[in-house]
This record gives sequence, structure tokens and C-alpha cells, in this order.
Amino acid sequence: LPAISELDDLVVVLVRPRNPLNIGAAARAMINFGTHRLRLVNPYAAGFREARSAVGAAALLKNAEEFITVAEAVADCSLVVGTTAVRDRALEHTVRQLNHEAGSEIRTRLKSGRVALLFGSEKIGLTNDDFSHCHWLLTIPTQPQQISMNLGQAVAVCLYQLAGSAPSELTDEKIDPASAGAIELITELLFESLQASGYVKPGTKAMFEKRTRRVMLRLNLQKLDAKILLGMVRQIAWKLRQDKS
Amino acid sequence: LPAISELDDLVVVLVRPRNPLNIGAAARAMINFGTHRLRLVNPYAAGFREARSAVGAAALLKNAEEFITVAEAVADCSLVVGTTAVRDRALEHTVRQLNHEAGSEIRTRLKSGRVALLFGSEKIGLTNDDFSHCHWLLTIPTQPQQISMNLGQAVAVCLYQLAGSAPSELTDEKIDPASAGAIELITELLFESLQASGYVKPGTKAMFEKRTRRVMLRLNLQKLDAKILLGMVRQIAWKLRQDKS
Repeated sequence: LPAISELDDLVVVLVRPRNPLNIGAAARAMINFGTHRLRLVNPYAAGFREARSAVGAAALLKNAEEFITVAEAVADCSLVVGTTAVRDRALEHTVRQLNHEAGSEIRTRLKSGRVALLFGSEKIGLTNDDFSHCHWLLTIPTQPQQISMNLGQAVAVCLYQLAGSAPSELTDEKIDPASAGAIELITELLFESLQASGYVKPGTKAMFEKRTRRVMLRLNLQKLDAKILLGMVRQIAWKLRQDKS
Repeated sequence: LPAISELDDLVVVLVRPRNPLNIGAAARAMINFGTHRLRLVNPYAAGFREARSAVGAAALLKNAEEFITVAEAVADCSLVVGTTAVRDRALEHTVRQLNHEAGSEIRTRLKSGRVALLFGSEKIGLTNDDFSHCHWLLTIPTQPQQISMNLGQAVAVCLYQLAGSAPSELTDEKIDPASAGAIELITELLFESLQASGYVKPGTKAMFEKRTRRVMLRLNLQKLDAKILLGMVRQIAWKLRQDKS
């Protein structure tokens, strides 16, 4: 594996990728731009580790980690950014254009923790459920007549921009963001409590779960606050379980 | 074909591309970033026009032009930029890193004429002979352990940077650069004259031809000066031919 670079804590997550060639192309671009943490959520392609186009990326592919859910794949990351080609559709997330400023912000966040960059499958992209795990979304500025990019090319363009963006100077403010895994734990207990308390109407479970997760991510919780909050919701959930039985 | 964009006068030239998939990927990236002039020099792949991965790029591939030589492929361009992964080798050209500044310069030159961006074959890249047709070279800043990029990804990264770079304000200076074709004509006549006059030693023909071309390109000739110079070398070449017979 390559020496530790400034993108060492970047985690590239391919969600349900279909084509081994594209997985290989993504891996090759990662090597080109000095990042090596590849994670796959439910890949369709069993043979991806031998992907042909992965010149120089065999070791990276061999070390790629597989996960069943997005939540598990990003659990140790303190910033989760989803990529999307969609612009018109009313998204409930902040969508930012890939450019020097967005690159700088991600580079700054890499100073204090891991950042996950999510790419969806070739045909469908990321789903609303995947989006609910993201702090914000990133879009590559393309022509309106062809917004959808090839997966390997999208990964290459994002990593090129990240590698070329300098992090901004850290402010005095102490930044120690909670991991996505810690926030997911709070979200689960909070959602359980909301269900138990009758807040969630029948038939709206999936929608409310996504909404709860999104709200928790928007809080940009620091590690300490996440710990306090977890203690609170854990107690409430326990009490609601007791009352039920 | 897409509407005229700010990259309308950019010409993407693939020199001896081998893999139809890569040609298709390059075409797709061109559509993504709003450029549509694709030229191929001696493609190995006869079936490239049906390249599978070219989502949305069928019309662009159908309109791609084929040429036998680089000289013909860039004849109507007033700036010719070659891409290369090579850094260590002593190149006789100026090599610039792809970044906002290089992008801005190309965007500025696009205001006054066509610009050709050359990409070499997947295995070998551009040769010294191809380089001799270039005003300067461009390299994508990658990690030293893997400098070579996949062709389709290299095209995507370059076009992303060009699309995102604003042209600099034009100075008062009038810029009306000569085309590569006009400079090639001068080069050919000058080289013929140099041979006829005994300047070119036996066995050094190919080397001197490249050197002559490079010198002429470095002059950054304006259209008017190219016309005057062409008249001069044409007369000299004619006289030398007369003396010989």
C-alpha cells in the first residue's frame, strides 16, 4: 500500500456497485491520488477483487472491506458526504458543488477524523435511505444534458479535486466531532422511543426513521455531547420498554 | 449534439487509442463537461463508434473525425497541449501541472481560437514525435507511486478542471495566433531548405525535423507573421530546388 498521504483518512464507499471494471477503475484512481481505504456496501460483483482495469491497485482491492449496510460502512467516520448527479429533484439535504471550497472543507475535516465519500450504483445512484446517512451531498458540476457520470470517472474527478484542495487553517474552536456510528446509536434509541410513545404513525416508519437520522446528523454533534445525549435517550428507551411490559 | 458551451472550441485528440471502452469513456466525459469535438489519430479499434460505455455520447462518437497524423488532427488549432504522466524524464518541453492556473490559460486561449488537448495511447502515452507538435505539456498531479492514469479518467479530470476554470481577462494586446497547420507548413519548407543546404547531417533527419518544429512552435507566431514567414521560406525552398536541378 502507498505511503500515508494527506488523504489517508478519506474512506471511499461504493454502495451496491455492479460492474467489477468500475470498482477496479475507482481503485486505480484512489492509488493515483493517494487514498487507500475502499469500502463496499453489498457489491453485486463477487469477482471485484480481481478487477481487470485496476492497474497497480491489486493490494488496495485485496484490502477493501465489505459491509451489509451503509450505517456500518461509515460508523467510524465523523463526516459522511454522498455524491449525486441529481439537481432538480427536491432533496432534503444541502447539495454543494464540487469545487475548491468544497474540497477545502473536506480536507479541513480530515484533520480531525475520517471522512466517508459515498458513491451509488452505476444505474440508480444513492437512494434516499443512503442519503439519510449523509451530512451533506456533493455534485460534480456537469452539463444539464448529461448529468450522470461514469462511476470510475466520478471517483477520479472527486479525488483529483480533494488532492488539489488545501485545508483551511483551523480556528481556535475545538473540533472533535462524533462518529457516524455514535450518532446512529442515538438515532436508533430515539426512534425506538418515538415509536413506543406513539409519535410515529402507522405506515410512516421508514420515512420517520430517515427523518430522525437526518435531524441528528444536522446537529453536528461533538463527541462529548453525543455521549451525554446517548445516556439520555438510553434511559428514556429503557423506561418506555419497562412501562410496556 | 449539445448546445454550444464555453468549451466549444476545445478539440480532444486521442492518439492511437486501443480500447473502444476507453474511447467511449472519453466521449462520455466530453458530454458531461460540454465539449464535443473528438478527433482520433490512427485508432486501433475499428468498432469505436459503437463503444458500449458511451452513455449519451452516440452522436458525438458518430461525428468523431479520424486522421492519419497528429499534424493533420491539430492543423486548425492555435494552441496544442499534450498530456503526459512522465515527470522524471528530461523533456524538452515546458511541463505544467493541471490546476486552476493552467485551466485558466487554456480557457483564455479558447477565446481566440481552437485548442487541441492530446491524449496518448493507454500503454505508451504520447511519443516524442507527438510531443513535437505541442506548444507545451500538461500533467495531472498524481502520487509518485502510480503516475499513470486510465485514459477515460484522465480525460474526465482534465475536462472537469477546464470547465471549472474561468478565463483570465484579455489584455489590450491583440492575440491572433497562427494555426498549427500554418506553422507546420513553414516547418516543412524550412526543414526541406535545411536539408538542401546541408544543415541536416545524415542519420539525424528525424531528430532535426522534431527540433525544427519545436522551435517554430515556441515562437508563438501571430497569424500575420506566420504569413510573412511562409512567403520567405517558400521562396528559399523554391530557389534551393532550382539550384539542385
